[in-house]
Amino acid sequence: MSALRFPNLPPSEPQGSDLLSQERARTTFSVHEMSTFLYGEVHLERQDRLLALIENDPAFDKSNRYFRGRSDRFRAALRKDHTLVKLSQKHKWTPEEYSHADMLIDEPGPFGLHRNMFMPALASQCTDEQIEKFLKPAMRYEIIGCYAQTELGHGSNVQGIETTATYIPETDEFDIHTPYLTASKWWIGGLGKAANHAVVMARLRTAGKDFGPHAFCIPIRSMEDHTLLPGVMAGDIGPKMGYNTTDNGCMWFDHYRVPRISLLAKFSNIKPGSGEYVKPPNDKLSYGTMVFVRASLVGAARHGMARAATIATRYSAIRRQFVDKDSPKKLGNQIIETPVLDYSMQQYRLFPIIAAAYACFLTSKEMMRLYHLNLKNMASGDFSLLADVHASSSGLKSLTSTMAAAAIEDCRRACGGHGFSSFSGLPLMLQDYVPNVTWEGDNYILTQQTGRYLFKSFRELVAKRKSGKFQSTQINNPTLAYLNTYLENPNLKCPVTSSAQFHNPEIQLAALGHRAASMVAQIVHALDVEKRTWNSMLVDIYNVTMAHCQLILVQNFILGIRGDLAQPDGVENPAAGLSATSKEALTDLSNLFAMHTIHKQPGEFLISGYLQDKHIAMLGESIMDLMEHKIRPNAIGFVDAFAFPDFVLNSAIGRFDGKVYEAYTEMATREPLNKTEVVDGYEEFIKPLTNPKGLKGHTMQSRL
Amino acid sequence: MSALRFPNLPPSEPQGSDLLSQERARTTFSVHEMSTFLYGEVHLERQDRLLALIENDPAFDKSNRYFRGRSDRFRAALRKDHTLVKLSQKHKWTPEEYSHADMLIDEPGPFGLHRNMFMPALASQCTDEQIEKFLKPAMRYEIIGCYAQTELGHGSNVQGIETTATYIPETDEFDIHTPYLTASKWWIGGLGKAANHAVVMARLRTAGKDFGPHAFCIPIRSMEDHTLLPGVMAGDIGPKMGYNTTDNGCMWFDHYRVPRISLLAKFSNIKPGSGEYVKPPNDKLSYGTMVFVRASLVGAARHGMARAATIATRYSAIRRQFVDKDSPKKLGNQIIETPVLDYSMQQYRLFPIIAAAYACFLTSKEMMRLYHLNLKNMASGDFSLLADVHASSSGLKSLTSTMAAAAIEDCRRACGGHGFSSFSGLPLMLQDYVPNVTWEGDNYILTQQTGRYLFKSFRELVAKRKSGKFQSTQINNPTLAYLNTYLENPNLKCPVTSSAQFHNPEIQLAALGHRAASMVAQIVHALDVEKRTWNSMLVDIYNVTMAHCQLILVQNFILGIRGDLAQPDGVENPAAGLSATSKEALTDLSNLFAMHTIHKQPGEFLISGYLQDKHIAMLGESIMDLMEHKIRPNAIGFVDAFAFPDFVLNSAIGRFDGKVYEAYTEMATREPLNKTEVVDGYEEFIKPLTNPKGLKGHTMQSRL
Repeated sequence: MSALRFPNLPPSEPQGSDLLSQERARTTFSVHEMSTFLYGEVHLERQDRLLALIENDPAFDKSNRYFRGRSDRFRAALRKDHTLVKLSQKHKWTPEEYSHADMLIDEPGPFGLHRNMFMPALASQCTDEQIEKFLKPAMRYEIIGCYAQTELGHGSNVQGIETTATYIPETDEFDIHTPYLTASKWWIGGLGKAANHAVVMARLRTAGKDFGPHAFCIPIRSMEDHTLLPGVMAGDIGPKMGYNTTDNGCMWFDHYRVPRISLLAKFSNIKPGSGEYVKPPNDKLSYGTMVFVRASLVGAARHGMARAATIATRYSAIRRQFVDKDSPKKLGNQIIETPVLDYSMQQYRLFPIIAAAYACFLTSKEMMRLYHLNLKNMASGDFSLLADVHASSSGLKSLTSTMAAAAIEDCRRACGGHGFSSFSGLPLMLQDYVPNVTWEGDNYILTQQTGRYLFKSFRELVAKRKSGKFQSTQINNPTLAYLNTYLENPNLKCPVTSSAQFHNPEIQLAALGHRAASMVAQIVHALDVEKRTWNSMLVDIYNVTMAHCQLILVQNFILGIRGDLAQPDGVENPAAGLSATSKEALTDLSNLFAMHTIHKQPGEFLISGYLQDKHIAMLGESIMDLMEHKIRPNAIGFVDAFAFPDFVLNSAIGRFDGKVYEAYTEMATREPLNKTEVVDGYEEFIKPLTNPKGLKGHTMQSRL
Repeated sequence: MSALRFPNLPPSEPQGSDLLSQERARTTFSVHEMSTFLYGEVHLERQDRLLALIENDPAFDKSNRYFRGRSDRFRAALRKDHTLVKLSQKHKWTPEEYSHADMLIDEPGPFGLHRNMFMPALASQCTDEQIEKFLKPAMRYEIIGCYAQTELGHGSNVQGIETTATYIPETDEFDIHTPYLTASKWWIGGLGKAANHAVVMARLRTAGKDFGPHAFCIPIRSMEDHTLLPGVMAGDIGPKMGYNTTDNGCMWFDHYRVPRISLLAKFSNIKPGSGEYVKPPNDKLSYGTMVFVRASLVGAARHGMARAATIATRYSAIRRQFVDKDSPKKLGNQIIETPVLDYSMQQYRLFPIIAAAYACFLTSKEMMRLYHLNLKNMASGDFSLLADVHASSSGLKSLTSTMAAAAIEDCRRACGGHGFSSFSGLPLMLQDYVPNVTWEGDNYILTQQTGRYLFKSFRELVAKRKSGKFQSTQINNPTLAYLNTYLENPNLKCPVTSSAQFHNPEIQLAALGHRAASMVAQIVHALDVEKRTWNSMLVDIYNVTMAHCQLILVQNFILGIRGDLAQPDGVENPAAGLSATSKEALTDLSNLFAMHTIHKQPGEFLISGYLQDKHIAMLGESIMDLMEHKIRPNAIGFVDAFAFPDFVLNSAIGRFDGKVYEAYTEMATREPLNKTEVVDGYEEFIKPLTNPKGLKGHTMQSRL
């Protein structure tokens, strides 16, 4: 029971639900058709089915999520993960169904890394014997594992880790040891409290040599009672900005002995007795998993942007503020405040985010297709796709997760004060999202890999062109294509003479391609001719990677609408089901995304020589015009098409029905501080100041 | 007792404390002298004195701050605020001492708004009678108040609030009422649980007319026992992204009657009986307080940037990662990883933030001086400074708080994974800081006020110049000066021919002035000639305000180092005490700030026509060179000069002594989840999966 009760009064007119109905009535396309384009029928049907199973299960109840302290939240997350395992076993879920349910529940839990890192690591590095011993029990959740790579003093540079695994020929064992405090395993999700096994990365030492980091699967807690095994110390690393429902843990080893089979031996091994090291056949194979994880993070970015944009856009259609004097809104005869979504600044803050989310939908699907294609190719010994896919997945992880973290925060701020309330759903979402910019390769460090690939491609292309044997038919990927176009004419100028011409996708791609290629050329010159150090060029390398990846996003958006993106075998092209109105609406977003991408960083485009001053002004006009006349009427339709159930949003202000203020006040009554009318602490900390003598009667008020 | 114990092992070499000592040894200037330049002796002496009082008082203990749930944190904050009041009474603190102590304790508490909004509102709007009745008891903390302006449906637009205060001639009372759910008071700091009085903004209705929002000081909770008074309902609005130690509250009124004296009547009043409204003499007077609050927020921005930069810079000098192959570091004969602060990207992420913090130190002091000068002027009827001060304080609040929020998050990310840990001190700091971009005028809305002033100034200047009577000696403020320079020669080109020439402050100011003025000219043309609507220009108006305020920051930085910023009466110019080495170091920062400000948004400078492509490349080179050779050696000195005690930072990784990993692991042992070895929930949620039959012995491990 809450001591806080709100009056039985409606919000003042117009009502949020009426406003959203009006918005929906003027949407020019079919929202369901658009959702189907984004997700496919299978996803949408599955979502309805899973939601029905989950929504009313008390283990997945979200009504207390914003109020609990960490220990309570962790216990609830443990219960949630347990129930999810049971449900998945009962319904025999596929991995896709499990992930989809997990997305709907939307709470990083203690078993998350078991599924997303521990099992994939085992799957890719176990021998057949190890599959029986480790992977199969893990799939049944008898073994619950974590992936222990990062150390207190060592993150991005895996080669720098200090934990050792020394082979002891006498007993055919490894001695796992933590030589320094900095070698303590740290940040390991699921390790703090839940896991009973760990894949530990440690320096393999044998026969007097150090062979660098290798993976070992070892027990850390007793299978009988979950106590720590002798020689292992572990615990939780404490509170974080987000992810507090996961037990990120720390661990150290005191000459902990494990049998030789602990070394995951699909690729490299130790000969028993002699301890001779057997080298892996091809170290490129491990890149596959990284590509998968990074491609998944592009998907996570589009999810984050879409979700935040849904909340902020709906709320902005309902929230009214000031009167736009040039165009006042009326309700009957009365002038009322203007919905904030009608202000050009609010549109400029939100609509490019909606467009970016759509852009990332198409690119995340394309990255997944390329991942699977490359995996298939590599299995048959063809590594031709690997470099390009690895470079673009690294760069796109960096670009899109930086975009998404900024977008979620921008959406939060665009909701004014209410975006700061947990009830908006945005703070927790942001806090759980932001580690994406750091993990799986820090966004700044990661771009060096993309840069290396671009410079190598450029140098090879230049050499080929000089050799006299070059034919443009040799160009077999889009990166080489735009680099070659630039080399054909480095002084190309944009032919646009009116703002509407920037809707031409060929112009957009030419601008983005020329800018990226000119930056590549300039950096290669600095490195190769001016002999600048790599370190001194890091800022430029970051910038060129962003430029390259922005081009990929725009390109895939354009191709995707046209139906010109390849699809995995047996998958119908989603563009085939698009009506003309949907295609037009998508083209509006694609134009906005491309033009805004250019317009917000005009410097590089001007310096590349392709655009001139006048073009920047034209782009600005074209963007404002497009947003006001084409995007604004469809804004609610665009975010409705993201198809987030209210259960996922968990937001008072982003609800589908628009009952913002009713939901918000109801949530406030549940705040634990409102359980009592007079706060705990009044007697000790307020009364001694305000009524120290304990006077009866309304002493102070009598002064009035 | 924690179940988590770390080994008695040191971090691997080199030790953090040694690294910081080496950094400090090569600082070229006196850190104490630099601190004195920033803060003055009075502040530094006061800090030592207050810290000694506070640091070991259990009421101000920070060791549990990162672990508590909201209700516990709120209770601790109540205790903290209570103790602070008692301490201030015991030691007869001045307001400056109180604020300084509050900054050191660094936790927004339930009495914060009493001091920062309630009492100032009373002080500026009370009659002499009301000072006795309200302000004096408030100063003694008998009355604890809050400032209730914002409503659930109404934020930035104060004119839109819906709460009514209807004068009842029969009883000489006001009837305070909440007509709609949207009229519920919302976000009011201190209202949720602590306050017994409120200054309520409500629409004054009398004699059949609505006179818009007016301030009323009314009791809301009983002075006897703190229960809510009949007709008032109030409570806490629930958890937020930050500020959870403050009880932001909500409130609604059911025809709540208060006597006429509740209307704060210094400027306007009601005649008893007739209810006739007596108008305020000059509504400009209320702008003074806004200027004060916004100038304070510039100070808060520099505080946030400086503090985050201190943590991230110290940690980056200790954290090592990868080997810079072109310039490997050695320890004895061993190649060791390179400190991340030696990478140009890390320098580019952090050093401009250090420079921006220094810039904001100078501008925040200058804004405070102007506030006091303007106040003095207004008291004698001189309103000549008001428009400029109001415009620049609005724009600077917007610019600097946006910069600071980004800077804190950038510093957090620059600490890699450990920046995500609460123990870094950065997440909580960010969460408590970010409302600054929304409150006291949303950063996007606020800039319209600055824009209006700029356009008006420009139009008047153009008219004066056309009138033929114009003389440049009429230019009496820096805004008119740069607008006039532009009008003298709109086609001016930058004469710089080598990168070092960008160290010339006149060139920096010319570039910033030409860019801002050309944007003003373009917008005025769009509004006046092309007849574009105000709404359609909001993005440009925001951009021009940022450009204008960046110029102010650069200008004050340059003038401040030279000793050419005016000082308040009786205050010695802090630049007078600067030695040549300190001046040189400050000039390095000033150059970095100016050049980076231009270089990160080159588009507007290119479009203004002042800079050409080649200049952008020169600026880039100059920035990288300056950072590597001049800023890097002094980086630790620059942040040490911010003089934040470890007590304020509350950061494992930003400590003065560099014992990062030792402090970090010690903090982890205090995590409540580590109190037990086996987690609460194991029996219900883990064991049924991993050992459902309750088998004894290490059953699973026997498989190994």
